[in-house]
Amino acid sequence: MRFQVVVEVRGRAGIADPEGQTIERALPALGFSGASSVHVGKVVRFDLEASGQSAAEQEAREMCDRLLANPVIEEADVTVRPAEPGP
Amino acid sequence: MRFQVVVEVRGRAGIADPEGQTIERALPALGFSGASSVHVGKVVRFDLEASGQSAAEQEAREMCDRLLANPVIEEADVTVRPAEPGP
Repeated sequence: MRFQVVVEVRGRAGIADPEGQTIERALPALGFSGASSVHVGKVVRFDLEASGQSAAEQEAREMCDRLLANPVIEEADVTVRPAEPGP
Repeated sequence: MRFQVVVEVRGRAGIADPEGQTIERALPALGFSGASSVHVGKVVRFDLEASGQSAAEQEAREMCDRLLANPVIEEADVTVRPAEPGP
């Protein structure tokens, strides 16, 4: 079965987020005054061939631990759903 | 009202995605053989104070066009939902 995987990687609480801070400072200068707590992360999307939903989730989680995220400073959310059938 | 905004920015179709290609080549070397179509993007999360859902969506969309994404090479998905009440 084919699954669509979305991995969102973001810095752990307390880890500096200079890109988020820069955006937060820049928005008021552009006239946007209501934004706060800006955080920037990374998102990795891919298709995954696996035997089932739980196998796909486990494999994606292992990919995070070994390649996609640095667990010392980052945390990752993994979302797996069955791929829509192609045309 | 306070809203939570999630903006996902990714390269348009046809724009080179070297980070995604690198991940796609690296995964088989780590023993993960089932992944394909790997794409890497950016995600920006923030809180937004606005008068209502549609106002928040419009403001977040304008932020994308003016700062968060480069519309020439990137496309952005904006998700706005009411913030959960704090503790």
